[in-house]
Amino acid sequence: MRDSNREWYFAERPEGEPDLDCFELRESDRPEPRHGELLVRVRYLSVDPYMRGRMRDTESYAEPWEVGDPMKGGVVGEVVESGSDRYEEGDFVTGEGTWADYTVLDAADVAPVDPDVAGLPAYLGVLGMPGRTAYFGLLDVGEPKPDDTVVVSGAAGAVGSVVGQIAKLSGCRVVGFAGSDEKTDWLTEDLGFDAAINYKTTDDYAAALDDAAPEGVDVYFDNVGGPITDAVFTKLNLDARVAVCGQIAHYNEEGVPTGPRKLPMLIAPRAKVQGLLVGDYATRFGEASEQLGKWVASGELKHRETIVEGLENAPDAFLGLFSGDNIGKQVVQVSE
Amino acid sequence: MRDSNREWYFAERPEGEPDLDCFELRESDRPEPRHGELLVRVRYLSVDPYMRGRMRDTESYAEPWEVGDPMKGGVVGEVVESGSDRYEEGDFVTGEGTWADYTVLDAADVAPVDPDVAGLPAYLGVLGMPGRTAYFGLLDVGEPKPDDTVVVSGAAGAVGSVVGQIAKLSGCRVVGFAGSDEKTDWLTEDLGFDAAINYKTTDDYAAALDDAAPEGVDVYFDNVGGPITDAVFTKLNLDARVAVCGQIAHYNEEGVPTGPRKLPMLIAPRAKVQGLLVGDYATRFGEASEQLGKWVASGELKHRETIVEGLENAPDAFLGLFSGDNIGKQVVQVSE
Repeated sequence: MRDSNREWYFAERPEGEPDLDCFELRESDRPEPRHGELLVRVRYLSVDPYMRGRMRDTESYAEPWEVGDPMKGGVVGEVVESGSDRYEEGDFVTGEGTWADYTVLDAADVAPVDPDVAGLPAYLGVLGMPGRTAYFGLLDVGEPKPDDTVVVSGAAGAVGSVVGQIAKLSGCRVVGFAGSDEKTDWLTEDLGFDAAINYKTTDDYAAALDDAAPEGVDVYFDNVGGPITDAVFTKLNLDARVAVCGQIAHYNEEGVPTGPRKLPMLIAPRAKVQGLLVGDYATRFGEASEQLGKWVASGELKHRETIVEGLENAPDAFLGLFSGDNIGKQVVQVSE
Repeated sequence: MRDSNREWYFAERPEGEPDLDCFELRESDRPEPRHGELLVRVRYLSVDPYMRGRMRDTESYAEPWEVGDPMKGGVVGEVVESGSDRYEEGDFVTGEGTWADYTVLDAADVAPVDPDVAGLPAYLGVLGMPGRTAYFGLLDVGEPKPDDTVVVSGAAGAVGSVVGQIAKLSGCRVVGFAGSDEKTDWLTEDLGFDAAINYKTTDDYAAALDDAAPEGVDVYFDNVGGPITDAVFTKLNLDARVAVCGQIAHYNEEGVPTGPRKLPMLIAPRAKVQGLLVGDYATRFGEASEQLGKWVASGELKHRETIVEGLENAPDAFLGLFSGDNIGKQVVQVSE
């Protein structure tokens, strides 16, 4: 008889703000890997804002989750049984798994992890999907040039913190919006941002931008939407580029959110606004991983993870994303 | 003593909808051209939606007009006195002049006009700024590919009617929004649009698009904004391109107009939205003029002008743009 396994399931579609009722923890036998598969003991699992989209009953870029499905997401862990020649017991890998103690991954779909390059949680953040999102979103959509002013919303998050640092490495002036003094201090004191605005204690974002970005905004990397974005759009310079990566301010709204119309603001600056999904860059992931790994190894690219302990707390860790609990990448530690 | 000249002046900044009080007709002596200048007897003058922007007291891509300034705009007319070797009396030219019987143009800034290629009004429309706007906006920003579905708002206007026809010449399915059955008939019966939607008699634009653009929208050329644009954004295909050329629905609104937030709609299709000003393509105007001229000469590109007679009616002609009086390019005939 196999040992047991705990796994989170999607129990109920949320209306508005999700809560713990949306999730259900079930216990079952530990799964067995088939040929070509790996049984992985999960060390860390990733909770990400995009998952809110999969909870909706509408088609989007990702298939909506069906109620009753296991919760899925990025994991990093140790191979404990291998059905593949590619990996053996004891190897560390990362891939798309389930919120569980043990998860089965297809050996063809995982990437190896070297715990000597960076801690395991980094493979869900700066060296994982968020880091690649920042890399391609900023460089390919934002096209930063030296001396450009780059503004980032959600700047202390997993993606935003990497965006700002790559912008600094690109020779830009960088301004971040974040939701606490601890976060803004981290941005300016540790990550080298030129300025950071605490959006929770600032009344007039436009005036704050006049101070922080006196030359206007050349690149805006938007993870958030809402009033921050409304203010940034009034400061766009000629030929400004806006990368729309996320709109977390709106994910829990029901119906179509409304706000200031932005199309009229695009004509005078001839600004370009573009939606971004990292999956489109799959053929270039190697390039990103190599460059991000070099920057991390050299210390030019710093990273931080907020670690929530215990698989049982995974839903809380996910819900915390919407109240901005995390600094850097939010991960759940499932096992030691 | 020189003959007299009538000229329109900007008399009052409008709040909301402009009216006749914004304009004042004055009479003065006919001006004399200095060295390098031409005195032109205006045959036709152009009224364009962008002029509403210049009436505002806020900096935009064009300097705001000062109250007391003469009304400026595109003109086509005949040289009656020349201070330049480049043109002589009797030549037809087009350039940026004033709303007047006679206007002085810098010979270096005008383009010659050949009345044998097309009627004079066409040089303010399909062969003028609106035609070039359509050409670069569609081809450079919209990047239409064969079998793409292209949707155009303001489709029976000076720019939109050219956009739709160039899209057809590019092998696309073309759908236009316009404000009367006469206009939609013109689009589908004369200009070759695949479908046209009368937005004044249609309740549900999204449902109308499901019929007219069943494969979704690959390129949206927006002259209008408002509810038409709101509907089109819900139908954007993967990698859709949106050229924001004009937003006439909002030009007479005071304050910042609000509406459905569109940034969240861009992520799933990775759509690109870009503001457009034709002046950015100045170095390539020759290319556009040559191609547009060829298409007009071959009959592949049709054009139509709505001619308002009499300089005294120029303000009415301008105001008529906001009620959609025009089919094709709205021009004022100043002299025979």
